[in-house]
Amino acid sequence: MRYAVIGTGAIGGYYGCKLARSGQEVHFLLHSDYEYVRANGMQVDSCDGSFTLPSVNAYRSTKVMPEVDVVLVCLKSTRNHLLKELLTPLVHDGVLVVMIQNGIGIEEDVERLFPNIQLVAGLAFICSAKTEPGRVSHQCYGSINFGNYSCRDEERFHQLVADFADAGVKAGVVEYHEARWKKAVWNMPFNGMTVALNTQTDCLLKNPSTRALIREQMMEVIGAARALGVTIDEQFVDQMIQTTDVMTPYSPSMKLDFDFHRPMEIDYLYTRPIAEARKAGFRMPKLEMLEAELRFLESLSSR
Amino acid sequence: MRYAVIGTGAIGGYYGCKLARSGQEVHFLLHSDYEYVRANGMQVDSCDGSFTLPSVNAYRSTKVMPEVDVVLVCLKSTRNHLLKELLTPLVHDGVLVVMIQNGIGIEEDVERLFPNIQLVAGLAFICSAKTEPGRVSHQCYGSINFGNYSCRDEERFHQLVADFADAGVKAGVVEYHEARWKKAVWNMPFNGMTVALNTQTDCLLKNPSTRALIREQMMEVIGAARALGVTIDEQFVDQMIQTTDVMTPYSPSMKLDFDFHRPMEIDYLYTRPIAEARKAGFRMPKLEMLEAELRFLESLSSR
Repeated sequence: MRYAVIGTGAIGGYYGCKLARSGQEVHFLLHSDYEYVRANGMQVDSCDGSFTLPSVNAYRSTKVMPEVDVVLVCLKSTRNHLLKELLTPLVHDGVLVVMIQNGIGIEEDVERLFPNIQLVAGLAFICSAKTEPGRVSHQCYGSINFGNYSCRDEERFHQLVADFADAGVKAGVVEYHEARWKKAVWNMPFNGMTVALNTQTDCLLKNPSTRALIREQMMEVIGAARALGVTIDEQFVDQMIQTTDVMTPYSPSMKLDFDFHRPMEIDYLYTRPIAEARKAGFRMPKLEMLEAELRFLESLSSR
Repeated sequence: MRYAVIGTGAIGGYYGCKLARSGQEVHFLLHSDYEYVRANGMQVDSCDGSFTLPSVNAYRSTKVMPEVDVVLVCLKSTRNHLLKELLTPLVHDGVLVVMIQNGIGIEEDVERLFPNIQLVAGLAFICSAKTEPGRVSHQCYGSINFGNYSCRDEERFHQLVADFADAGVKAGVVEYHEARWKKAVWNMPFNGMTVALNTQTDCLLKNPSTRALIREQMMEVIGAARALGVTIDEQFVDQMIQTTDVMTPYSPSMKLDFDFHRPMEIDYLYTRPIAEARKAGFRMPKLEMLEAELRFLESLSSR
């Protein structure tokens, strides 16, 4: 299958390069790095083995890309207002759009823009960063789970999963809503709390007060999911906390965004799930408070 | 009446000096400033008119103080573990102890130490600071409300109020529980939130997200009070917010404590009211979260 990567950063750069190295035809959308990548290709420094692609298909605009079978959207969700313009040239009958972003409500909003599009969620479990133009550093993890939102072409969906697996990426298939909400169980507490308290995952779990708070916030996410018809076992909370206990001290993506004065993904990580839960009659008071704190900090940072 | 002041700082220094200047016999407990005050007296720089007391009754220990009628306890509540030792020499039949501190549960705890003592709460509305040894700077406000907790000697209680009034302090009488919880309506949101977000009252109210959050936290306090049988009208929230809107940008005492690496009054301002409400079946989720954030920040600051 032919792939387009929209957003060639820490995530899109990594998965796109893995696919390209395994022999898939991959077309990368680039902005500031376009000239560099056009001339020098891309490089992946990876805990699983580093590699270089001396030549990649680089584009400044999706308007000049060839027709592809799969579009991997790897932008920060703070840039989703660009999707109408970016995706329009790539949308045709049968195209599969994979939203590799965090949050709740992502696919619903894209579907509103392109009502008949086939959409899949990509939930990435990866620590990676774009360190310089055309260069991605992949520190650890790297698996991806796909949740089928509206893909009618089962064959294409399974080919997507198979292509990732062939590229050496651990790829799984999960139920869409469960996958998005399970990811939110980790994302909502840790992304915001590391920003609010200017800290990392390990410190939040070492302090008994914030450890209890993180657990309560996770329970709020499980309660919200349940109100929306998605059952997540409460043991999943223990599992997430234990997993994080043994992780190396970690700054989630929102913390890095805040520290580097980039916009934070508050809309899809907080505002939207809080609103969805509220519509279903469920309140998430501690995560509502966290959202307010993040909005406050965001307003200072953009001054 | 003869007065003892335990804790000759921003609050105890101000009210004690006002009483002394008006002709009351006031005995001050001092520690680090003892030598200076013994030699030089005290000075009050006040928006209502500055004055100097060239000579004051200063003591290093309550053991050497004469018998007094009223003890004004103006310590930070973080030092209340010292009260057993500090008050024992001053406790006698008829003594009135006025707890000029913020929080919930203050008098209950002192009563546990001294079961038959007569206790009154003093709710101070004042901006003042101890700027150097023997010197208090009083910037604005200054009124005090007294709530009778367990004073059987009505005459002495009213004499206390009259003495403050004679000293030029706006002094009122309020119902004990209502007074403590009404003060908590302002204290619980603003003290902690200025610490958690490293800001001042005005910024919290200018940002629409934190403005809404402050209001919700105030509603939690009103709900807790109600669960404990204390009715506070919801309009009081609007009143508190409007009052704060027109105040000069303000760092509450907890913010100053945190900035100067002093212990924060988390126990009586958060832990205790949250626990009391919980016992009555009422949860304060946003203020619980704030407590956890403060505990986290406290643990960093004391490292």
